[in-house]
Amino acid sequence: MSRAHTEASISELVQSCVRADRLQKSIAELATFGGREDGGVSRQALTAVELEARRYLIDKARKLGCEVLIDACANLFFMRPGTTSLAPVLTGSHVDTQPVGGRLDGAYGILAGLEVLEALNDSNIKTKRPIGVVVWTNEEGCRFRPGTMGSSTFVAPERLEEYQDCRDDSGTSFRDALSSAFTRLHDLPRGAQKIPLHAFVEAHIEQGPVLENANVALGTVIGIQGLRWYNVECTGIAAHAGTTPMDARSDAMTAAIIVAQQLIALPLLQEHPTLRLTLGHWIISPNSINTIPDYVQFSIDVRSSEDNVLASFEQSLDTILNSYTGRCKLKYSCVFARRFTRFPEQLLELVDIACLKASSRPALRMISGAFHDAMYLADHCPTCMIFVPSKDGISHNAAEYTSNEHLYLGARALAYVVTALAFDQ
Amino acid sequence: MSRAHTEASISELVQSCVRADRLQKSIAELATFGGREDGGVSRQALTAVELEARRYLIDKARKLGCEVLIDACANLFFMRPGTTSLAPVLTGSHVDTQPVGGRLDGAYGILAGLEVLEALNDSNIKTKRPIGVVVWTNEEGCRFRPGTMGSSTFVAPERLEEYQDCRDDSGTSFRDALSSAFTRLHDLPRGAQKIPLHAFVEAHIEQGPVLENANVALGTVIGIQGLRWYNVECTGIAAHAGTTPMDARSDAMTAAIIVAQQLIALPLLQEHPTLRLTLGHWIISPNSINTIPDYVQFSIDVRSSEDNVLASFEQSLDTILNSYTGRCKLKYSCVFARRFTRFPEQLLELVDIACLKASSRPALRMISGAFHDAMYLADHCPTCMIFVPSKDGISHNAAEYTSNEHLYLGARALAYVVTALAFDQ
Repeated sequence: MSRAHTEASISELVQSCVRADRLQKSIAELATFGGREDGGVSRQALTAVELEARRYLIDKARKLGCEVLIDACANLFFMRPGTTSLAPVLTGSHVDTQPVGGRLDGAYGILAGLEVLEALNDSNIKTKRPIGVVVWTNEEGCRFRPGTMGSSTFVAPERLEEYQDCRDDSGTSFRDALSSAFTRLHDLPRGAQKIPLHAFVEAHIEQGPVLENANVALGTVIGIQGLRWYNVECTGIAAHAGTTPMDARSDAMTAAIIVAQQLIALPLLQEHPTLRLTLGHWIISPNSINTIPDYVQFSIDVRSSEDNVLASFEQSLDTILNSYTGRCKLKYSCVFARRFTRFPEQLLELVDIACLKASSRPALRMISGAFHDAMYLADHCPTCMIFVPSKDGISHNAAEYTSNEHLYLGARALAYVVTALAFDQ
Repeated sequence: MSRAHTEASISELVQSCVRADRLQKSIAELATFGGREDGGVSRQALTAVELEARRYLIDKARKLGCEVLIDACANLFFMRPGTTSLAPVLTGSHVDTQPVGGRLDGAYGILAGLEVLEALNDSNIKTKRPIGVVVWTNEEGCRFRPGTMGSSTFVAPERLEEYQDCRDDSGTSFRDALSSAFTRLHDLPRGAQKIPLHAFVEAHIEQGPVLENANVALGTVIGIQGLRWYNVECTGIAAHAGTTPMDARSDAMTAAIIVAQQLIALPLLQEHPTLRLTLGHWIISPNSINTIPDYVQFSIDVRSSEDNVLASFEQSLDTILNSYTGRCKLKYSCVFARRFTRFPEQLLELVDIACLKASSRPALRMISGAFHDAMYLADHCPTCMIFVPSKDGISHNAAEYTSNEHLYLGARALAYVVTALAFDQ
């Protein structure tokens, strides 16, 4: 993406106006909404405290001169006008957290975006295209499953109807939670979904150890690895652990162990270092010390940046289940699948330049292991991400931490990218 | 155990007075206490309905001329006097059931015992020794853990103090449940624990498929197989399933699968058909599809009639854990152990004769896979058991079933054994 020298200078100017102290202050202020004594944040999607956090952000955006809109999934858009009505450049992330999350997951992307608007204001720059900072609804997916509801419905509004009847653990539907949000945020005009965008840029903490281990401040995210979720079900017959001879058993746990052991020992895992396999969720019935289990279900979370490797994994899973010769009934089902999301090379080159200008060192090109709102936006418009390091790779945890310097450098890179894109024809 | 011809004739006489219709009627009547629409029984230890069932049994025993005593663990003793004050012969079982149990598990042993008293009355026999029918408290161990509280405290009264503070799921202590029982059964004089007994005989359904598969009506139980319970704990580090490279993981589930797979594949299981292994109870943290587990605990229930085989199993378990080279921390602990309980050969020979006389066919000598009150009584006095078949080996289930004919034959065998023992010097 070659850009005129003038526009590159403007991007550098805006980048130079990013202020670390101001960014730190807004991170600290936002963290008070749902702040915990251990330094973590508990602010699940569309709860009262999450709506108070949104109000804090709305006030902040209005002070910066933004128009604030809310769409049908309660995504918030803080729009800074451009000199034309060309499709806007959007940046941002999510404000909801895990039940016990950190101060940065999601929040950083929004606050870095607002810091870019501060820097644009301070440098008196009017961009060609409007710039928006977005707050996506329910990225985490812990109160209402699945996650990334806001970004996925923005790009495919028909999904909203599917989500309306999802319920949280207390029985509240997503429909009712949205309705409460609209009541609380009644002063906001309704924005449209799936509006044309010139680009979407998301700054986020890495949530993994790659940047820290490489001792690099900024990451250019090539894309988001593909994912498949399976459930494996083993059905046997419950019986007394003492009275049932071994050769008369249909032991569902034995079947599950045989399958699981073959999965974790798959040569594919050695051959393809990009493959990541987790057997994290188990249901065991009756789960009693002296009863042979009649039912075991376990989840498979398998990820790779190579779609053909995911396909090979599924083939292996199928072969393992078909080769089982015991008495239980085995089956598997794919409950979610998403191919590798590749970001466009032109944008990656712009992020590389922005990171180099921001930190005076080359960024690391890397793959995102986690899902982000950017994954769905990539279905809709040119999309890219900037990563900053996570100490010890820890996230979804009160101990989540990124140094002030790295947060500052990430915001500088974001300012460069957003400004440059906002001057595109 | 050679017995005078006269006494053998008396035993046969009493056996001949056992009536199938009367036994069926009492089984049906007792099953109304906690009876379920599906034919099962829900009558957990010391609940209101279990105390009503006890009252039914007390009334029945008094009508048969028994003195009824209650001991410190609420065990009930229905005592039919003998012509001497020699140590009594005791038979019986338990009246409590699993949350969903059948009509026979425990109940059969008590009602067959009372049918023996009916037969003794009908044949106008006064035995030398008193005969008691006992109702042991909380054999099942589902409301208050552990099970066999009544029989284990009878033989070792110091155990009662340990049990007093056990609580059921609603928070009621065993102490309070006992206190309610004493209030409800206030008319019963207190009997002593650990009184000298000449012998204990327990009739019980098999709860396994061995008799049915062998097409034999009655089983002479050689003993109760040994048992060891272990917990294996695997501790790793929780992390994001997407962002954590495979070589940076401490996955507690992977460690558990590696250990469990080696256990189920142990050559020892092939070499010793008496060995029974169940991995029935699992705790997985955080048990989330997209988080690497940081903690997995699983139970081992291992049983054998050969104590040296159980010792070999423990050695193998130790070797497997020591040979683990991954990043998790593994440990195991033995939470319960009981050696093989062998019943005395003299009593087995008497049971063999009684079964042959009862059914005109030899009994099958067999090992009990399940625990019974008789296991603890064997620590205190000569003890034996008589088994009747369980259809499809099913128990702890509304579908638990034994044919009327088999129940009748078992009561006939019991009558023979109890009468013979009650004439011993």
